[in-house]
Amino acid sequence: MRLLVVNSNTTAAVTERIAGEARRAATPGTDVIAVTAPFGLPLIVTASDWQVAGTATLAALGAARGTYDAAIIACFGDPGLEAAKERAGVPVLGISEAAFHAAAMLGRRFGVVTFTRALEPMFVDCLARHGLASRCAGFRSGPGFNGDPGTVAEDRAAMVLDLIDEAVRLDGADVVIVAGGPLAGLARRLAPQVPVPLIDGVAAAVALAEALVRIAPTAPRREARPSTGLDPGLAALFQ
Amino acid sequence: MRLLVVNSNTTAAVTERIAGEARRAATPGTDVIAVTAPFGLPLIVTASDWQVAGTATLAALGAARGTYDAAIIACFGDPGLEAAKERAGVPVLGISEAAFHAAAMLGRRFGVVTFTRALEPMFVDCLARHGLASRCAGFRSGPGFNGDPGTVAEDRAAMVLDLIDEAVRLDGADVVIVAGGPLAGLARRLAPQVPVPLIDGVAAAVALAEALVRIAPTAPRREARPSTGLDPGLAALFQ
Amino acid sequence: MRLLVVNSNTTAAVTERIAGEARRAATPGTDVIAVTAPFGLPLIVTASDWQVAGTATLAALGAARGTYDAAIIACFGDPGLEAAKERAGVPVLGISEAAFHAAAMLGRRFGVVTFTRALEPMFVDCLARHGLASRCAGFRSGPGFNGDPGTVAEDRAAMVLDLIDEAVRLDGADVVIVAGGPLAGLARRLAPQVPVPLIDGVAAAVALAEALVRIAPTAPRREARPSTGLDPGLAALFQ
Amino acid sequence: MRLLVVNSNTTAAVTERIAGEARRAATPGTDVIAVTAPFGLPLIVTASDWQVAGTATLAALGAARGTYDAAIIACFGDPGLEAAKERAGVPVLGISEAAFHAAAMLGRRFGVVTFTRALEPMFVDCLARHGLASRCAGFRSGPGFNGDPGTVAEDRAAMVLDLIDEAVRLDGADVVIVAGGPLAGLARRLAPQVPVPLIDGVAAAVALAEALVRIAPTAPRREARPSTGLDPGLAALFQ
Amino acid sequence: MRLLVVNSNTTAAVTERIAGEARRAATPGTDVIAVTAPFGLPLIVTASDWQVAGTATLAALGAARGTYDAAIIACFGDPGLEAAKERAGVPVLGISEAAFHAAAMLGRRFGVVTFTRALEPMFVDCLARHGLASRCAGFRSGPGFNGDPGTVAEDRAAMVLDLIDEAVRLDGADVVIVAGGPLAGLARRLAPQVPVPLIDGVAAAVALAEALVRIAPTAPRREARPSTGLDPGLAALFQ
Amino acid sequence: MRLLVVNSNTTAAVTERIAGEARRAATPGTDVIAVTAPFGLPLIVTASDWQVAGTATLAALGAARGTYDAAIIACFGDPGLEAAKERAGVPVLGISEAAFHAAAMLGRRFGVVTFTRALEPMFVDCLARHGLASRCAGFRSGPGFNGDPGTVAEDRAAMVLDLIDEAVRLDGADVVIVAGGPLAGLARRLAPQVPVPLIDGVAAAVALAEALVRIAPTAPRREARPSTGLDPGLAALFQ
Repeated sequence: MRLLVVNSNTTAAVTERIAGEARRAATPGTDVIAVTAPFGLPLIVTASDWQVAGTATLAALGAARGTYDAAIIACFGDPGLEAAKERAGVPVLGISEAAFHAAAMLGRRFGVVTFTRALEPMFVDCLARHGLASRCAGFRSGPGFNGDPGTVAEDRAAMVLDLIDEAVRLDGADVVIVAGGPLAGLARRLAPQVPVPLIDGVAAAVALAEALVRIAPTAPRREARPSTGLDPGLAALFQ
Repeated sequence: MRLLVVNSNTTAAVTERIAGEARRAATPGTDVIAVTAPFGLPLIVTASDWQVAGTATLAALGAARGTYDAAIIACFGDPGLEAAKERAGVPVLGISEAAFHAAAMLGRRFGVVTFTRALEPMFVDCLARHGLASRCAGFRSGPGFNGDPGTVAEDRAAMVLDLIDEAVRLDGADVVIVAGGPLAGLARRLAPQVPVPLIDGVAAAVALAEALVRIAPTAPRREARPSTGLDPGLAALFQ
Repeated sequence: MRLLVVNSNTTAAVTERIAGEARRAATPGTDVIAVTAPFGLPLIVTASDWQVAGTATLAALGAARGTYDAAIIACFGDPGLEAAKERAGVPVLGISEAAFHAAAMLGRRFGVVTFTRALEPMFVDCLARHGLASRCAGFRSGPGFNGDPGTVAEDRAAMVLDLIDEAVRLDGADVVIVAGGPLAGLARRLAPQVPVPLIDGVAAAVALAEALVRIAPTAPRREARPSTGLDPGLAALFQ
Repeated sequence: MRLLVVNSNTTAAVTERIAGEARRAATPGTDVIAVTAPFGLPLIVTASDWQVAGTATLAALGAARGTYDAAIIACFGDPGLEAAKERAGVPVLGISEAAFHAAAMLGRRFGVVTFTRALEPMFVDCLARHGLASRCAGFRSGPGFNGDPGTVAEDRAAMVLDLIDEAVRLDGADVVIVAGGPLAGLARRLAPQVPVPLIDGVAAAVALAEALVRIAPTAPRREARPSTGLDPGLAALFQ
Repeated sequence: MRLLVVNSNTTAAVTERIAGEARRAATPGTDVIAVTAPFGLPLIVTASDWQVAGTATLAALGAARGTYDAAIIACFGDPGLEAAKERAGVPVLGISEAAFHAAAMLGRRFGVVTFTRALEPMFVDCLARHGLASRCAGFRSGPGFNGDPGTVAEDRAAMVLDLIDEAVRLDGADVVIVAGGPLAGLARRLAPQVPVPLIDGVAAAVALAEALVRIAPTAPRREARPSTGLDPGLAALFQ
Repeated sequence: MRLLVVNSNTTAAVTERIAGEARRAATPGTDVIAVTAPFGLPLIVTASDWQVAGTATLAALGAARGTYDAAIIACFGDPGLEAAKERAGVPVLGISEAAFHAAAMLGRRFGVVTFTRALEPMFVDCLARHGLASRCAGFRSGPGFNGDPGTVAEDRAAMVLDLIDEAVRLDGADVVIVAGGPLAGLARRLAPQVPVPLIDGVAAAVALAEALVRIAPTAPRREARPSTGLDPGLAALFQ
């Protein structure tokens, strides 16, 4: 199967990191195609970033239309996810969504850890939207961040490990999500040092997308809608 | 004060209707400027419409930047509202938001009535997001709609009146919202026939926007963000 | 328009403070009439205070019946509010209610700060009743208080400023309510030192009451009820 | 033990009915003293009734202070209950409260049936306040009521039986509360015709009050509060 | 009346402690019969313990069938409670259930204190299931425990007293539950040193069970079910 | 990988049906082993059935210990699920759990349809426990059922199709779960006649179990616990 992975921010280094993790997680028969948002911002943090990134993600999905059997929105916060589910005609998963559901199936209460607390409001709202807030043991995150999203997974690895420890010991988490697109792959590297399962959103999304294609290969598509002045990819999605 | 009213869909007739209602509701010192979304769809119904309309609304807000003291997003569902609040630097209100808050202050349980049930999922999600679901006595809406958004307020006026009656009698609503941008002004015309207060989102938003400017004249603004490939209005909003 | 402001406690100095703040917040065409509860307690703190203050507030509203176009219950906790809305025949707003709604329209998550934690249970219950608990980032309050309600706004100003800082930094509030009738006006004085909007319940209630009178000039009134042995003001309200 | 039962409305026939049911439910060592609200309304239906009845109930509790070991507020809706718990110094139970807790301990999902839907909003709010809404299978109630509260238990007995049947068959209730002070005793008379337990609020309150006196014979009392212009019973309660 | 008390764990010393407390709490006419789970684990802590203890409790209830008028499941967490209510034909109460309801009737917000935090997840889930989470001011518990459940009530008495103090001062609890079957009787011994009511689950369950038998002497019983390979006590319960 | 599928009821025909559906859903490298509950009841409907079936399911999991890489509890209601997750040492999924999560990832609001309303209370409680109630558009179910669980999938196929139609048209479901172990495979057969994705719990559980083994191959195991008098399979699980 062909799996489209959209990085909703404009940082190519993050796209590469995500693509690498997605390919590592995919089964042999899955072909991973990774694309970067055609416009927008280098890191998605606030509600305004999310709004723009969601539209950019839809444009990417529309531009590649017909070339994939499932898609992943590889940005924690899942920008554009509900719109994408409506119009893609194939299963679409967000990496927050995948992480929340995988964690809920692997334990009773999951913790969420990330590198900067600036991301927390977006994650909290995203969790509420997916309906799984009652399964969450709490959030733990690092201080403000102004560095390079392309290397933060290395720069803040030790801090993330400490936060995971707090989630397990103090919050009672029995599974922990390592959240944030720029941290793709970090859960895999830290797992040997941690006594509970660690969830990587990208890896979880790849495995779950493959499962969903088997469970429901096509999603119902809404009818075509007239539109005005849209980016060509976006316009394609509404046809 | 200068009040910008953005119609988030691309139907100019709806913009005119909204502008008329806004001017009728404004106090003498308020100057209403109405604009239509620069791109998007003629009616906002589903999650994908909402996503695109939100970005178009932000572009309109950015394009007019510096020319208004408060803004109204005149589309039920409030597309782009949270992003707009972050970056506009002045109070921004959605017409759903205004209607929900006004209704909650005028009664104990409000009903929500609209012309087509296709809008219900968006309204339900919007209400949950504003946190006022426990104050809602229920939704009542008409059947599917394929007509002209510019005249639906006249075409379905009798049906809306019946739905209001059901909301009061069967759901116990003690105030009723007449929801949907294309119905702007209908609440005012039906009010004499109804025993409880009727809320028009546009009129409520104008009165509340004037109040908020007095309560908190400026909103804190986030720092400038680098962006790539954005519509000029949108780019302006991130500077 | 004529705006009745009822101080639900019996401390005349608090009534004066509230009246001053209300007049400062009103537009030129609004005439503010301030009255003190005809019986009850000097400060409203617990559920039993609230019960008595609610009835005293209704008696005040009934005694002045016919002389106002809207009313404000100027006591955090909103004693008697739902009863007043039922029977006043004009819009009635509580200052907690006004503060919660104004804050929710100005930000995503509001903090609530007050001078003594003895008030917290009443505020928490009041917030739940209004349905906006999911919008609240948390409460911050000072220690027990046995001083003069008439001067606590000056005596504890520095402490309140520190609590506001904690609400913003630690709880992530993007707007803060300075709660408690005896603190009327303090938000206005502290605002220049704070990076987010501060909400004063009295000022918010005045602006929102003016808005509501425009949105729905009369509220439906319930039928007359026979009563026995009531205070004359109270009896008037049931006629 | 001495058990004070306060009828929060002013209808003496209802007080007698309640007193009879309370005596029937009490164990031999319990002495039931029944009093009628010293002022107020003949039937408690709306929020304004509730407000006045709560204060009248407190006045009755204060007037009899020192003569009882536990008290029951015998009015569905529990007017004045939280205030009474704070200041009575002995256990105080409302008949709604008792019915909700007894029903929750006897089944998984309880229905609530009453003679007029005008009471529903008060009961819904009361249930939410006690925190047991998730245990409720639904409300079923009769049409508007303008008759004699003293005989409605006989006049609408057949209708109540039908509503109980609907609660069991359609809502899945496995225990049903027959709600409303004027219906005291009706549950006992209908029980033989119903396949699930029926709860009478007065009888439940008597049995639970006796239990609570054994579990916690005295409640902590708040400190005395200065007050002005209160009814002597009310004033006594604040000393 | 005859009251069966089932200790859901296999530690006979705990059964004796519980039986002693139950007899102390019972009125003269109540005959307490205490039994130990016929199989299972010495202390019930986790979800798997709870599952096995629930079935063992049902087996005990079935083995003694016909010899009791009410039953108590004397294990915090209430294993097997809902099944027991379905099939016992008489009122059955769990000691968590009894403690939560008694505390909710005696105050506005109750704290829950226990000797080891390993029990917290089970208690949290149990509280949610009973629907009373909104009435809880918080949990306070001691560190991990590997000692003797038969003497922990003495070994950790001082620690429990400190935790009660925190619940009152820091969490605002106005009543506190001393939770955990092995702590039966400790609340009674600590009560003189504490300013709010302390609830012992066993004592509360005895008083409430006596009340429920008066309120609804028999519970409806489900029809017989065919079964295969069950423990004889369990099989008896399904007949 | 080796996948153990436990039918929690004792009806061998249902085990066969489930095994067939599981094998159809599995990828080539997955070996499905299906077992029937070693004791218990022919159909799991009520809370008491659930309690016994949960323990029987644990006994089956323990008896087969070491022979599987993941397990499925193939009974709607997920008896024993949390206990199994604690002690199995490999991922364990319930078929309700799998259906709820798959449906939530494939749509915005899912409907749940089953053959008899007697199952609804168990499903409602199970859904609440998994935390996904806010994603559910409603339940639709057939009347009481006394027939053969082994053939009900054929006997009530037409009724189920009608209920699916109602879920889509009246409840707004955009994906529908066909619930109940005895209906395994029916969703697959009805899918061509339905405009939205249909979810079969067994098929969903197989695909998701394969995904979870890739996401987190081993689950943390709790320490051994001493036990008394347990069924050998059960005892093995606690070692």
